[in-house]
Amino acid sequence: MPQLRQDLVTGRWVAIATERAKRPSSFTRAAPVATTAAAQCPFCPGHESMTPPEVMAYRPNGSASNTTGWEVRVVPNLYPAFGPAHGEVQVEPDGPYLKMDGVGIHEVLITSPAHATDISGLSNHEAELVVQAWIDRMRVHQDNPTLRYLLLINNHGKEAGASPEHPHSQLFGIPVLPPVYEEEAAGVRRYRDERRRCVYCDIVAEETSARARVIFENERFLAFAPYASRTPFEAQILPKWHSSRFESLTSAERGAFAEALQALTGRLETGLNDPPYNFFIHTSPPHLSGDVDYHWHLELLPKLAIAAGFELGSGVMINVTTPESAAEFLRGIEPRSVNRSELAPAIH
Amino acid sequence: MPQLRQDLVTGRWVAIATERAKRPSSFTRAAPVATTAAAQCPFCPGHESMTPPEVMAYRPNGSASNTTGWEVRVVPNLYPAFGPAHGEVQVEPDGPYLKMDGVGIHEVLITSPAHATDISGLSNHEAELVVQAWIDRMRVHQDNPTLRYLLLINNHGKEAGASPEHPHSQLFGIPVLPPVYEEEAAGVRRYRDERRRCVYCDIVAEETSARARVIFENERFLAFAPYASRTPFEAQILPKWHSSRFESLTSAERGAFAEALQALTGRLETGLNDPPYNFFIHTSPPHLSGDVDYHWHLELLPKLAIAAGFELGSGVMINVTTPESAAEFLRGIEPRSVNRSELAPAIH
Repeated sequence: MPQLRQDLVTGRWVAIATERAKRPSSFTRAAPVATTAAAQCPFCPGHESMTPPEVMAYRPNGSASNTTGWEVRVVPNLYPAFGPAHGEVQVEPDGPYLKMDGVGIHEVLITSPAHATDISGLSNHEAELVVQAWIDRMRVHQDNPTLRYLLLINNHGKEAGASPEHPHSQLFGIPVLPPVYEEEAAGVRRYRDERRRCVYCDIVAEETSARARVIFENERFLAFAPYASRTPFEAQILPKWHSSRFESLTSAERGAFAEALQALTGRLETGLNDPPYNFFIHTSPPHLSGDVDYHWHLELLPKLAIAAGFELGSGVMINVTTPESAAEFLRGIEPRSVNRSELAPAIH
Repeated sequence: MPQLRQDLVTGRWVAIATERAKRPSSFTRAAPVATTAAAQCPFCPGHESMTPPEVMAYRPNGSASNTTGWEVRVVPNLYPAFGPAHGEVQVEPDGPYLKMDGVGIHEVLITSPAHATDISGLSNHEAELVVQAWIDRMRVHQDNPTLRYLLLINNHGKEAGASPEHPHSQLFGIPVLPPVYEEEAAGVRRYRDERRRCVYCDIVAEETSARARVIFENERFLAFAPYASRTPFEAQILPKWHSSRFESLTSAERGAFAEALQALTGRLETGLNDPPYNFFIHTSPPHLSGDVDYHWHLELLPKLAIAAGFELGSGVMINVTTPESAAEFLRGIEPRSVNRSELAPAIH
């Protein structure tokens, strides 16, 4: 008999279809995807003129803007989905409908000069710099009254929408509250009204005690497969202490968060031979800095299943892998760097 | 400047990213996908023993069950995501979480004996029989108190989750109200509270008057590209009169609905060379037969874009094609039957 499980935050039900069950290893990609030559990659060092001028870069040796020598480099997206963000945004009628200018920001954060090295393959110090860059850019935009939400995302692999392939994250600032965040925030409020506790803090307590869905943990962070996982190998990283804002991480916390993210993505990339995935960070909106009820976190969704008519039409996801078996599989993986460049050496 | 548009029913915003705009014809598939040989197809005539025993079939010449001679044939799904549906369903605690048995029904409706002919390629009479079969099966299950919702879906093409490839629809009966339906029903109530009118009736009035997003219409039905289309070539078919339940269609209405569905999918398949797509029908839940506020409809979503980190993390879709240009493109298409079997003759 298939099983339905309810997400404790959103109240949404997920179908764990054990009748259609697949073993975790059946999702392993036959071979890692070779990278293409980097000669024309706009994100590689030496090609800085191929992007819009940088808005930030970490240059430990003080090299000039838009030249080589950077560790992390941030540029505006050449084809922005939102932007620019200036002045008042007007909601206007269009027949019976409403529209507004798609004001906002859309930045690309190039996470390493190395064309074939994603966050999992960086040193922990380098990965912490990436986290630092995410936070620095969010802080730059946090006082812009046009922006109702700042969303940091990372697409990994072509099937997950990563184009170009040189590893990079993206920061979006948008003029509306995103419904996915709103649904979570409503769940947080409902749970607190009913039980006087934070739902995410309760999840941390349950998962660190039950162990079956834990993938990795250190003193400060827990990486686990959610009870009502929507897709095979869905994962979250939660801070173990209550904190509403990702941007408030201290230096030591940033290092621990980077370690958890590297452990999670490294196990996934090693265990399943570099599958496509997306991750994003849900944090409190900048204009709600006084709202300390929310609990920020990272969500990671591998692209290993097709959302077809049933999922699109109902919003109920069918997951053919239990989170317990996914977590057990990932716990047993010894992460090694998936060196994509060995397959097709990048030419610089 | 990109544009944000709000869905009049759900209130969700969609980003129409004109900076990234693609011309409609750029979504055309290079060549139609050839079908594989049908020798082993469990849905082809002569292979009736390869499926679970049929629960319904239209047999105009009165042939025996589970033999050839059928026009539409309905069988339980061999790998059901839900089921069976019997007795009481218990919600049980699992630590701090909730779970229940995935009771329900999951049926496959084989829409034609022809391996390579989807609904667009049927005669209008044959297509009307398909609609009749959907309704007949929904009526069979409407009084089952275990089922909170009946969802009819159709996946077309491998990338849209259609496996096996022989054209078929699927009927799901599930023990929870789907959140996508609930969000629409809440929008219908909110609009009616505010304006004392049906939001979908207002959309029919606007679109038939404005014309820019109309794809096809007949006396009873309107096929159009929604104002806040989430993906390129998203389409809806709305009855032009107020009706909460798909299952209440009369014979003449079924023929007109089948015609609109054939016109829509035929134009899509011809214009874009057989792209993958999903469609589903949103109707009032069986236990809410007294609720006449809802307005049933069909939604069709082509699989022409990847929902990546931004869309998954925000719930805000980025659409690179305006619904006006998509509708204009489809209006100009003369549908012809995409004969997949010419490419790789089916062997029986």
